[in-house]
Amino acid sequence: MISLQLDINKLEIRNRQNNYLKKLTEKKVDASILFNTTNIFYLTGFHFRPSERPIAFITDTKQKTHLFVPRLEKEHAEEYAVIDNVHYYQEYPGLIHPMEHLKEVLQANNFENKIVGLDASGYNSSKGYRGPNIANLLNFDREVYIKDMVESMRYVKSQDEIELIKESARWGNLAHTLLVKYTRLGKREIEIEGLATYEATRAMFETLGNEYRPYGSPAHAFYRGQIGPHSAFPHSQNQNAEIKHGYNVVSQAAADVWGYKSELERTMFILEVNKLQESFFQHMINVQDIAFNTIKPGIPASRIEEEVQRYYQENNLNKYIRHHTGHNMGLLNHEAPFFDLGDHTILKPGMVFSVEPGLYVEGLGAFRHSDTIVITENGMEKITYYPRDLNSLIIG
Amino acid sequence: MISLQLDINKLEIRNRQNNYLKKLTEKKVDASILFNTTNIFYLTGFHFRPSERPIAFITDTKQKTHLFVPRLEKEHAEEYAVIDNVHYYQEYPGLIHPMEHLKEVLQANNFENKIVGLDASGYNSSKGYRGPNIANLLNFDREVYIKDMVESMRYVKSQDEIELIKESARWGNLAHTLLVKYTRLGKREIEIEGLATYEATRAMFETLGNEYRPYGSPAHAFYRGQIGPHSAFPHSQNQNAEIKHGYNVVSQAAADVWGYKSELERTMFILEVNKLQESFFQHMINVQDIAFNTIKPGIPASRIEEEVQRYYQENNLNKYIRHHTGHNMGLLNHEAPFFDLGDHTILKPGMVFSVEPGLYVEGLGAFRHSDTIVITENGMEKITYYPRDLNSLIIG
Repeated sequence: MISLQLDINKLEIRNRQNNYLKKLTEKKVDASILFNTTNIFYLTGFHFRPSERPIAFITDTKQKTHLFVPRLEKEHAEEYAVIDNVHYYQEYPGLIHPMEHLKEVLQANNFENKIVGLDASGYNSSKGYRGPNIANLLNFDREVYIKDMVESMRYVKSQDEIELIKESARWGNLAHTLLVKYTRLGKREIEIEGLATYEATRAMFETLGNEYRPYGSPAHAFYRGQIGPHSAFPHSQNQNAEIKHGYNVVSQAAADVWGYKSELERTMFILEVNKLQESFFQHMINVQDIAFNTIKPGIPASRIEEEVQRYYQENNLNKYIRHHTGHNMGLLNHEAPFFDLGDHTILKPGMVFSVEPGLYVEGLGAFRHSDTIVITENGMEKITYYPRDLNSLIIG
Repeated sequence: MISLQLDINKLEIRNRQNNYLKKLTEKKVDASILFNTTNIFYLTGFHFRPSERPIAFITDTKQKTHLFVPRLEKEHAEEYAVIDNVHYYQEYPGLIHPMEHLKEVLQANNFENKIVGLDASGYNSSKGYRGPNIANLLNFDREVYIKDMVESMRYVKSQDEIELIKESARWGNLAHTLLVKYTRLGKREIEIEGLATYEATRAMFETLGNEYRPYGSPAHAFYRGQIGPHSAFPHSQNQNAEIKHGYNVVSQAAADVWGYKSELERTMFILEVNKLQESFFQHMINVQDIAFNTIKPGIPASRIEEEVQRYYQENNLNKYIRHHTGHNMGLLNHEAPFFDLGDHTILKPGMVFSVEPGLYVEGLGAFRHSDTIVITENGMEKITYYPRDLNSLIIG
């Protein structure tokens, strides 16, 4: 019997909540309110599309959990969230502002004169929301800002989280294979990406069945404008470019599985590669290898960047650098910590990172692979597995 | 000669900046700092993907404009932004935190002891960013929170903005037509959506040419799980459902054009419609007509919701309501003001709204059309134009 893992089970969500409550106690925080979408999903399994309507996750002084949602989300929250209580308000802005309702919920749960943990000073949305800071609504003994605490709970992934990231990588690999298949001389970006994404998405649903919930984007592959010399802009604004002989192109493929992400990028060449391209490609492979060989638990994240930068320096490549070597990922495509000179977080088994040192050469293009890795007890394991050698990456 | 309008020209961006500076002066604000992505795009034409790396738009005491960006975005900002100065820092977190660089820029531009407008207390991102509030970095005379001021500048659209929204609606209409074309008995959601989106996107690029920049998603059409009885959940979590005889389905189609959005949704029926479905459909049409007939400049936004709710009350429909009747839109899919009992903003010509009263019937499904309208001198004009009568909406 094959058992697919396509979500995080309720027991693990409960464990996260217990861990969260334990950390609050260590900080001597009596109760807490979280407004951030990702934090709420992580701690409840309730996935929603943020809008003008505030949503909050609350833990009270008795360590019971609450969700505060608009009427629109009531049944949805009741069915999907791992939660003790669901409270709802009619609408935003409504005749009574949602924060007045929230105030009542907090009063009824003894938040007044308590030490309260918050991930933001209030609900904050650029989608037309206006409202007061939560501390202006009722008197707390003290507010404790716990955004970093909650975010750092997500640094080290559980075995089940790693499985979801591996599932994501599998379908990113298919989307990437299809992207390459449709990349041919004279073809344009939009057609190539559209076909690859459509076929990979369909294969994903047909393989995984209807229990598969992306909570994001199913399998997709793009060039995002990184075609030919224009790829030298890391965030290229090229649109629907044509594939031409000798171009280098940089791809990007991924898939969300219950919100979990992976990252796969490849520098490839159309029909042939010239000496200059080959030389930058080889430097990029060399620094990525240096990163792979340096990564292990117990050292600071900055160490990886230091080793990479040493190579750049020794090979006079500094002027081609535009960004650090990698970032943690999971429910968001970029999360802390970073492989960056200024990030001294100690690496631990279970942390998942992109490894993507890049060289950007004006008039020629970008040279960047991105692979997703997980830190193991002794070093690291590569999660993405698309070939990365030059011969495998000449298209056509 | 046909001249396509596919962006907002630099003159209009400059006018926005002048208008912004004038409003600051009225508020006696000496200088300002904006961190919000949409605000920055609106005021500079510089579109970027937000990440852990802070970006800020600054106006100094001499009313000069500045962008503060990571090294990664330097050339991109210099090429695309309507701006007097571009400053950059190497990387986040970096050996020196980006906010220390920002502090230097602010000091060099005489921000100390001035009245400073801010749209947030500091850069804030859930993608692993950590940093200080800006007011902890240097001494201002006073901070003035101007988030609402900037957002309300976007309420009334210019003629060019309305043209982009109409362009968006045109391609949303194509995507919707294709969605209906591929919706057939026994087909599943993902295949239908994938084909419609792929074909509409391709047609859009081939028609508009490579000057077309979506700054978002090109033409797309979805059911978003709103298929059959499951559509009764406004934010359905149905996945890849099969199209079955007698189902009602609710669609959603749009396209981004230089970031500008429209919204088109239709309640449709597979092969036939029963009496109960027809009755709820007719109620929904009636309330949408009431909204259309009420909308005009000079009245509060709440008036529309009051009229809609009067109909609900008179027809005992209250228990089927889950949300207000509509929202402003433009660069975001939801913006203030809202057609809501609690929103008393006076309607003005040039405001663009969704009109989407909905009825949600357990076991049966959702009944909701959404149309995009613009308020005119005398009333309103519909921007979306897909047929909305029952006979046109029976599929197959």
